[in-house]
Amino acid sequence: MSPIPHTVGEAGEHIVLERILRILPEARVPLGPGDDAAVLATPDGRVVITNDTMIEGPDFRAVWSGGADLGAKAVATNLADIAAMGAAPTGLVIALVLPEHTPLEWVEDFARGVASRADGVCPVLGGDLATGPVRMISVTALGDLSGRQPVRRDGARAGDRLALAGSAGRAAAGLHLLFAVDPDSQDPTAVERLRGAGTATALLVDTQLTPRPPLGAGPVAAEAGATAMLDVSDGLLLDAARMGRASGLEVVIDTQAIASCVDRLVDGLAPVLGVAQAGSIAPELALRGGEDHALLAAFPPTGTLPPPFRVIGELREGEPGVVIVDGASVPPQGWDPFAHVEPETRRRG
Amino acid sequence: MSPIPHTVGEAGEHIVLERILRILPEARVPLGPGDDAAVLATPDGRVVITNDTMIEGPDFRAVWSGGADLGAKAVATNLADIAAMGAAPTGLVIALVLPEHTPLEWVEDFARGVASRADGVCPVLGGDLATGPVRMISVTALGDLSGRQPVRRDGARAGDRLALAGSAGRAAAGLHLLFAVDPDSQDPTAVERLRGAGTATALLVDTQLTPRPPLGAGPVAAEAGATAMLDVSDGLLLDAARMGRASGLEVVIDTQAIASCVDRLVDGLAPVLGVAQAGSIAPELALRGGEDHALLAAFPPTGTLPPPFRVIGELREGEPGVVIVDGASVPPQGWDPFAHVEPETRRRG
Repeated sequence: MSPIPHTVGEAGEHIVLERILRILPEARVPLGPGDDAAVLATPDGRVVITNDTMIEGPDFRAVWSGGADLGAKAVATNLADIAAMGAAPTGLVIALVLPEHTPLEWVEDFARGVASRADGVCPVLGGDLATGPVRMISVTALGDLSGRQPVRRDGARAGDRLALAGSAGRAAAGLHLLFAVDPDSQDPTAVERLRGAGTATALLVDTQLTPRPPLGAGPVAAEAGATAMLDVSDGLLLDAARMGRASGLEVVIDTQAIASCVDRLVDGLAPVLGVAQAGSIAPELALRGGEDHALLAAFPPTGTLPPPFRVIGELREGEPGVVIVDGASVPPQGWDPFAHVEPETRRRG
Repeated sequence: MSPIPHTVGEAGEHIVLERILRILPEARVPLGPGDDAAVLATPDGRVVITNDTMIEGPDFRAVWSGGADLGAKAVATNLADIAAMGAAPTGLVIALVLPEHTPLEWVEDFARGVASRADGVCPVLGGDLATGPVRMISVTALGDLSGRQPVRRDGARAGDRLALAGSAGRAAAGLHLLFAVDPDSQDPTAVERLRGAGTATALLVDTQLTPRPPLGAGPVAAEAGATAMLDVSDGLLLDAARMGRASGLEVVIDTQAIASCVDRLVDGLAPVLGVAQAGSIAPELALRGGEDHALLAAFPPTGTLPPPFRVIGELREGEPGVVIVDGASVPPQGWDPFAHVEPETRRRG
């Protein structure tokens, strides 16, 4: 072991953990990290629990995502699943697998990314550190329903309005931009240029690399009487089809209505994205692109829709799980960045 | 995609999940697997939570451990951490990373292994499936304290008796036996021979590959007034030192007292293990060998000790974390099967 450790292998678990815990906000819970297990208060008498796991290679590339990006994304995607039940986040458990040559600095960046999304939201209760051939991040998130019923994906009723909170298509556009960067390159400046402060591309790439799901909208939707809700992680079409299938309903999506949700930035980038017809790429990305982690919810036909939800269609009697876009049935496929893997195989949450 | 899928890559997530859920017992909880998140009842108003992650390579070898072994071990090691807080298990969340060429049959075996330890104990609430270069299993376990205070590792008091529930040294002896099998070999019969029904070696190898922690002893110890407790995962010396350091006490261990906890089988295997002096290997394995997942607890000096705990020493004023064995201070190192990795680096729980 060298006197000044630079990698996690040189430092050993004790030092790595100490560096991480120094950065994370203190957990104000009955028992925080450091023992065989932690203890979290659950005044509601129930706890909401989810897991999302990201693997270097299928889920992220080191040349695109730094440690801070991955810490932020791992937290955000899990908390989106908590929000999609109508719950508020209460805790995180993080398993981090790292090759021994991983720089300690990377781990500290990861902790800063976690802290950037967890601070003031929920504590990190504990986790595990392990060595492996590639980086792997497995996060379990916990949430509280404050006495509300969980908003499941199978509760929509015929006539319900379909509504979206958050962006659609930005993350997919960002991924398009990233694909122009050689994933095997060791040069980070190409990605840095895309993410330059104030640039239009930065907003799209940042949505892909560090999404900001509308977490507060989950409990708000539950309070407002949402009948079904889920986190849009695999594309609007695929996730809308899931809600329809679970609820035994057909889903109708109106491209005109979606247009208001589609970021003008995406349209403006059509030339950059190499698409001939400007104006056609945005709805396509919004429908098939995932990873913005917007919330898709069904609301009863009447009543005020709580912001930031916007109506994009409806649910009706019909063939369960079929999605009708502008009058035509559309195959419920997500837009898949890793062509060799089926969309259904990529992510479950 | 072939008509009859044989690998997880051919099957895709939907079929893999269906196969797994068919094997797992149904989760009798407010909301089980299948939505963005699950909901677990926590009548105590708190939830105990832990994570343990196992990676192919550092933590297990495919030629030694089948899917069923790994499913059982992943559950057992996590539930040992729950028990070590004095809690009873209430749920499991399992992230499973698999190379695409993994046989579907392996995944079904894994689910059977999980079910063998979870059935009648606690439900699987959900998880995540992902593809990656090696198998990785990250389990988060939840538990309930039934109104008791969690038994931490830092609560021992001077004069407390140190007691052990479960075996010590069996798993390490089993690992010694497994090391005689070439880990890069593709021939499973060598391991099968070691695990032959009724053989002495089978008990030792099975303790390494599928430990059976004394889960019920955790809540029993808490009820009986245990002042500190932890799961022995990295060796008795190392884990006793942790309790001593956390509690600000010196730990005294009596080899004579340990002898009653050491399996005679281990001694009998000294020739097989290639150790010259029969009789010396057993205490060594018991002190430095981990992974039996026994429970190490501190109890007040007087009062009846609840079975199956047996006194093996005491805690007293002195240098915090120093362990005295038969009158001599011993370096608190765990017995490390993977020499290139520090004991502290291997496992946290």
